[in-house]
Amino acid sequence: MAAAAAPRWQQTMLRIKDPKASLEFYKKHFNMQLVHRYDFPQWKFSLYFLERPRDKDIESLPPPGTKESEQYLWSMQGTTLELTHNHGSEHDPTFSVWSGNQGSDLPKDSPLYREGVIRGFGHIAFNVEDVYATSAQLEKDGVRFQKRPDEGRMKGLAFCLDPDGYWIELVKRDEGLFAENQNLSQAHALYTPLTVLRSFLHAPLALPTESP
Amino acid sequence: MAAAAAPRWQQTMLRIKDPKASLEFYKKHFNMQLVHRYDFPQWKFSLYFLERPRDKDIESLPPPGTKESEQYLWSMQGTTLELTHNHGSEHDPTFSVWSGNQGSDLPKDSPLYREGVIRGFGHIAFNVEDVYATSAQLEKDGVRFQKRPDEGRMKGLAFCLDPDGYWIELVKRDEGLFAENQNLSQAHALYTPLTVLRSFLHAPLALPTESP
Repeated sequence: MAAAAAPRWQQTMLRIKDPKASLEFYKKHFNMQLVHRYDFPQWKFSLYFLERPRDKDIESLPPPGTKESEQYLWSMQGTTLELTHNHGSEHDPTFSVWSGNQGSDLPKDSPLYREGVIRGFGHIAFNVEDVYATSAQLEKDGVRFQKRPDEGRMKGLAFCLDPDGYWIELVKRDEGLFAENQNLSQAHALYTPLTVLRSFLHAPLALPTESP
Repeated sequence: MAAAAAPRWQQTMLRIKDPKASLEFYKKHFNMQLVHRYDFPQWKFSLYFLERPRDKDIESLPPPGTKESEQYLWSMQGTTLELTHNHGSEHDPTFSVWSGNQGSDLPKDSPLYREGVIRGFGHIAFNVEDVYATSAQLEKDGVRFQKRPDEGRMKGLAFCLDPDGYWIELVKRDEGLFAENQNLSQAHALYTPLTVLRSFLHAPLALPTESP
């Protein structure tokens, strides 16, 4: 494939039950911005595109739902989280998406064992400077956890849950690496050795809830 | 949450059956690079982190599996695709991950209707300059399609399938926007109005295979 035609990764799409809950969650807890939305009332679905904005853009995003935000969406550099809402699911008490982490490929005594489906999608992940502090703050703010950083045998890694029960991994990055007032080229030159995966490498067998 | 502690989206994780097939697929067809790998033989799994490299990095990635690639992985700006391989699944003829796109929330006469699970994860997406040309080339190269760009009623959008059957959407971007020899700041200034979603907006009801 010619270089100029090279594909760029633009989105990861997850279906959600209630856009109000999800948009508030990702905005409040992960600083994600709604960069554009499409509404298709005739087909009863809406699409919400969220970005964790890069530094220079954070104050200058056009209002979602405008031609400018549409342009931004399809010309931005980053990868978006596309949340798809099929209208009505928020009023259906039986509606609960499958997070991808329960399946028959787990041991039968695992709390996540489930017949009839093999696990596929696992999680999205954010890196943060301090997994413990971030997790404590998230929990204080009411966020549910699949695994706190001091639980299990993979210390320092955490999985919280979004409103639909999708797993969100929290992974440590070096402090100061991505402060908001750094631009991309500056940040790129700043990396330093990372130790988070060392403990992961030397930890004993993971709990079922941590099983890949 | 303090600005300096702001999370960054680092990965989307998908479980795969066979890393050889998946790595070759994403490298060959989507120019994704393996930026780092972790092997955990004691726990029988491996992790492969793939990136669609940004221009300046494409020639300078450190060899995967080194300390340098580990540093790069946890300090890079972009979002990675993390492929998780639980050892042995490649030899298990019954192993086939659930792509997230079959479910009981679809009409019962849909070919994707499936009892017992509600659709969650949908797809990852790449944007390309020419969805038709890219799709034709991919199909010539043996890639399977869920929906070709001229099929269904959402013309111009395509979904191909990766080796595990995960859906990969192909979405049009403006020509010349992300040529490989442009750097980030240059590319950012180049966006022009986009029309791809116009036809999407005005198209009649989607086929079941396109249903969100």
